[in-house]
Amino acid sequence: MNDSLNSISSLLKTMDSILIFPHINMDGDAMGSSTALCLALRKMGKKTFVMLNEPIPKNLDFLECGCSTYDENILDDVQLSLQIDSCGMNRIYGREVAWERGRIKGCIDHHASGINDIKYNFYRTEPKTAATGEIIYKIIKLLGVEISLEIANCIFAAITTDTGNFQHTNTTRNTHEIVAELYDVEGFDSKTISALIYDRQSKEAIKMESDVLANLEFYSEGKIATGEITQELLKKNGCSMNESEGIIQRIMSIDGVEVGCLFKEKDQKVIMVSLRSKHHTNTAAVAAKFGGGGHLRASGCTMNMNLQEAKEKIIPQLIIAVEK
Amino acid sequence: MNDSLNSISSLLKTMDSILIFPHINMDGDAMGSSTALCLALRKMGKKTFVMLNEPIPKNLDFLECGCSTYDENILDDVQLSLQIDSCGMNRIYGREVAWERGRIKGCIDHHASGINDIKYNFYRTEPKTAATGEIIYKIIKLLGVEISLEIANCIFAAITTDTGNFQHTNTTRNTHEIVAELYDVEGFDSKTISALIYDRQSKEAIKMESDVLANLEFYSEGKIATGEITQELLKKNGCSMNESEGIIQRIMSIDGVEVGCLFKEKDQKVIMVSLRSKHHTNTAAVAAKFGGGGHLRASGCTMNMNLQEAKEKIIPQLIIAVEK
Repeated sequence: MNDSLNSISSLLKTMDSILIFPHINMDGDAMGSSTALCLALRKMGKKTFVMLNEPIPKNLDFLECGCSTYDENILDDVQLSLQIDSCGMNRIYGREVAWERGRIKGCIDHHASGINDIKYNFYRTEPKTAATGEIIYKIIKLLGVEISLEIANCIFAAITTDTGNFQHTNTTRNTHEIVAELYDVEGFDSKTISALIYDRQSKEAIKMESDVLANLEFYSEGKIATGEITQELLKKNGCSMNESEGIIQRIMSIDGVEVGCLFKEKDQKVIMVSLRSKHHTNTAAVAAKFGGGGHLRASGCTMNMNLQEAKEKIIPQLIIAVEK
Repeated sequence: MNDSLNSISSLLKTMDSILIFPHINMDGDAMGSSTALCLALRKMGKKTFVMLNEPIPKNLDFLECGCSTYDENILDDVQLSLQIDSCGMNRIYGREVAWERGRIKGCIDHHASGINDIKYNFYRTEPKTAATGEIIYKIIKLLGVEISLEIANCIFAAITTDTGNFQHTNTTRNTHEIVAELYDVEGFDSKTISALIYDRQSKEAIKMESDVLANLEFYSEGKIATGEITQELLKKNGCSMNESEGIIQRIMSIDGVEVGCLFKEKDQKVIMVSLRSKHHTNTAAVAAKFGGGGHLRASGCTMNMNLQEAKEKIIPQLIIAVEK
């Protein structure tokens, strides 16, 4: 059973040394929420770090705020290991040793998956909350810590990235109410944060996006659009695969496209597939056929075959799914 | 002096026949605000229409809601002619005859310009409000009309387009507070509206965008990026110029780009120039040198010369401005 925000806040008040674990393949919500909580706990005089084992993506670097560490022995004693925007050992892959150091273990998350997996001392998961940043905001208020500009920036980044700039269906009244309060923080400027997150793409990434968009394929009378990022394309443009964020949204912006599919060639035998749908198509069901998963409208899978084989396997399934 | 929202609402209650005028080259705020007010006034039993003389852009077609007309004689008697998101005769170009039919004239706007020009019976301009949709929302509440789903959709569209999805600096606490309330309306779903506005680009427009992005030019060590849409490019892709919305934002998303400039070749002797800046550069001052204008960070001008000549004139000015 979910613990209350009150009981979690009370517990946090009694802890002096805390390691915070955002999920692997961190996003704005994982990193923003983790750092916001870390900053708040530090203001209370606690020893706290955000434990990482991967580099922070360039567009989220401003969410570091001196909080993160790669050193699993940074604290002599760890009273609490706390997962943020994450619930389950598979989500903190590679950081198990540091995790086990915490005498108490808990998680605060808004994902629906992983709940059955929980053997922690406490947890809070709110699948109807748009971003973990919203939960963290409430906890910081309960802790009695003033929202500083850095904390406000982290919370805004967490919420705006996970809601697709307040456009996704997960956005609620509460989402906007919390963000409204951030505007009371001296110096807060949404544009500054937004430009840091979205307006630092490399010229090379823009060229790559241009190449992908110029070579889309369409199926089912345009209801399905597919794009491909091959190793050759990355090499030609001098890009890495993690610079492909955002391309799938561009594909989804096309009129009449219900399903978007982006093939990412990790190597000649491994194809990562991102799936999106606009309205009715259950992309998670298609991804599940190939060992993947996700949400109804956003999912993915990894296929151990070459690009041509992957396309031949998945496109017919998408055609069936989109016509349902 | 600005009239109060209370006095404007009281006046609206006494009017039975009202023509509403959104500004020319309508955007989401002009059309969303106009239709929202029209729907509210109709709920009060009034004869009201949104007076247009241009087609509604495809991505805003859902904001029509049976409210608009092109017939300047649609009402036998016009008690009030009301500009929305607009203040000044130049903003309702081509609809002067219909405008003059109103025995009382007023405007409700959030633009700073045009205020000196006002000779109307009443006006309300709020330059610090992000969208006219916010002002209209407050007026509808004062009128005592319940916010229907259609009205909520119009208000959301008005606000989300004028704030760049709540990312622009013009966004305030009040913006989010109003949108929070829209979530109380039965059936309201931000994603539906957002998909209608942003996710109906033609395949051809995506190809054109791809071509523009593949051929950007950079100046001042990458601080300036320029793109071009020629008639030849439009022809090649089967696009019209008004499908180029959004390309300038893609240019601005590039790391290190402080100034973005998009040249649109209307014909061989007329080049429309859109200018944007990220931080400090005063693009309005550059546009003003060529008879244009706008805001600090977003402006434009029209140059009566060919593309090459326009580039040779404006790029050196941008280089000076960006280095300031």
